[in-house]
Amino acid sequence: MTSLDHLQTLAVQCVEQELFLNEPLSLYEPVNYGMRQGGKRIRPLLVLLATDMFGGDIHKATQAAVAVEILHNFTLLHDDIMDKSPFRRGQPTCYKQFGTNAAILSGDAMFAMAVRKCFEYEPNVAYKLAKVLSQTSIEICKGQALDMDFEKQDNVTINQYLEMVRLKTSVLLGCSLESGAIIANVNAHQIKLLRDFGELIGIAFQIQDDVLDCWGCFESFGKVKGKDIIDNKKTFLYLKALEMANEEQKKELLQIFSANDINQNEKVEKVITVYDSLKIREFAENFIKDYTEKAMENLKKISVNAQSKENLITFANSLMKREK
Amino acid sequence: MTSLDHLQTLAVQCVEQELFLNEPLSLYEPVNYGMRQGGKRIRPLLVLLATDMFGGDIHKATQAAVAVEILHNFTLLHDDIMDKSPFRRGQPTCYKQFGTNAAILSGDAMFAMAVRKCFEYEPNVAYKLAKVLSQTSIEICKGQALDMDFEKQDNVTINQYLEMVRLKTSVLLGCSLESGAIIANVNAHQIKLLRDFGELIGIAFQIQDDVLDCWGCFESFGKVKGKDIIDNKKTFLYLKALEMANEEQKKELLQIFSANDINQNEKVEKVITVYDSLKIREFAENFIKDYTEKAMENLKKISVNAQSKENLITFANSLMKREK
Repeated sequence: MTSLDHLQTLAVQCVEQELFLNEPLSLYEPVNYGMRQGGKRIRPLLVLLATDMFGGDIHKATQAAVAVEILHNFTLLHDDIMDKSPFRRGQPTCYKQFGTNAAILSGDAMFAMAVRKCFEYEPNVAYKLAKVLSQTSIEICKGQALDMDFEKQDNVTINQYLEMVRLKTSVLLGCSLESGAIIANVNAHQIKLLRDFGELIGIAFQIQDDVLDCWGCFESFGKVKGKDIIDNKKTFLYLKALEMANEEQKKELLQIFSANDINQNEKVEKVITVYDSLKIREFAENFIKDYTEKAMENLKKISVNAQSKENLITFANSLMKREK
Repeated sequence: MTSLDHLQTLAVQCVEQELFLNEPLSLYEPVNYGMRQGGKRIRPLLVLLATDMFGGDIHKATQAAVAVEILHNFTLLHDDIMDKSPFRRGQPTCYKQFGTNAAILSGDAMFAMAVRKCFEYEPNVAYKLAKVLSQTSIEICKGQALDMDFEKQDNVTINQYLEMVRLKTSVLLGCSLESGAIIANVNAHQIKLLRDFGELIGIAFQIQDDVLDCWGCFESFGKVKGKDIIDNKKTFLYLKALEMANEEQKKELLQIFSANDINQNEKVEKVITVYDSLKIREFAENFIKDYTEKAMENLKKISVNAQSKENLITFANSLMKREK
């Protein structure tokens, strides 16, 4: 088994070492910009963790790791246009930097590049990788569509929200783990257990994101506090708050969310005050803990020795304790 | 060999019979709208023509035919956003109908759907289809990038223009033929000849499009006359005209293309008058003839009997005589 540190370094390196700049520059400069904006490279790391856990060759897995990271960054590029997000990781988003047309087109190219990367493998591996990547991409699109739908919808249930999160965020984590398992030539049953682990962790990860949007460290990470609130996103926190609120609090929440004339900072503070009074943060953190535990149960069932699973466990736990 | 009529019917039917409407509607309604806007279904037909020419099973080829048509319509959806085109086939374009965000996201989903469709085949066929589809997609993106670059560039050569056309239009025709050949399990050399045929025909097809933009039938097909001129597109006609023009004509052309205050109809008429005086239409039509002949030479070299090639020849010739 490789050390987690080494896998983390390799996950970053394999993306950094990939050449994205090519001709025509108008197409590849935005690609390169998006891929060089950094980020935690969680998905490439998951690929490597899975390959390593099953005793596969991590150096063989780097191309698949790059593929899932390209796919992830493609979705960020297009989501930022749709969400009109001005910043990502403290820098202007791609469409702000290069224009909407360039960001649309370069996103498309990244999608194609992610799929084509699978074909650097021998046919039986390429087949499985490209299949899961294309299936996952459709699910991510569904998730993004639901996310945008929910912004305009008043009656979103927590279960609908969790399904949206599963599609928008979790399936790609599942896909990353599956890709790593494919490289290690693992059977379908083991893959299913690992995917389920990934999807459960992914949901916990997103709820954690919702929590960090309200109670994270903003100044140091170039993020806007309460962006989900400003965007009227029906997050887990909001939906849970509506569920727990008394009539007066419910009325207040709905009013703040539908008001157009309210100052953004004021809106954020008002909503967080309601969340705090309802102990929403504690509830969300317990939920994250439950989902993490469920995920771990799936991991336990995978037939490799406990020691091989340690990196994945350590990493999953670290995700749940991040501050950005 | 199947009759061309039958193949044409099947090409339309396999796309019409495909279900595109699914949940969430916000994602699939634009997909369905785009796929139901009609069009000539040239690419699915090319898939079927290739399979049939090599004696393959055309009913097996229909899924690949649908895949290339989805891919084609994905590019149209996104191109229409980038080009700000209000109409396609006499109807509002997808982004005009559903908004830019929906058109971006549904386009992405279509791309993923096209790739996933390949995986309805057995692994060795799926592998080859998805590989050529992803490679082709990158080339199409490059072509679109060059096309947008050229709008802002003064020194585009005819060769650069032809390479842009090859990438933006021809490679997908080549890919369609290759996909059909893959279904018929043909060797790489035969595929190469057929692809080259497709790419040469594709270039001729696009120059024909340039010609029809100026001298086609507009009223009946819901197209705007001289849209390329209005958009300052450096078409084959424009580049050839610049090459053939005397100093005075050249000055006039450049002036018209850089003027912002000129009435659109006046602009179109003025440019076409210059084209006419330089016999650009005749030149373009000869060019189309030359490329078609080159394409036919490639087709001749393919080792199936002459009769099996007849449909493809008839179809290619009909493309060059279309009025829309």
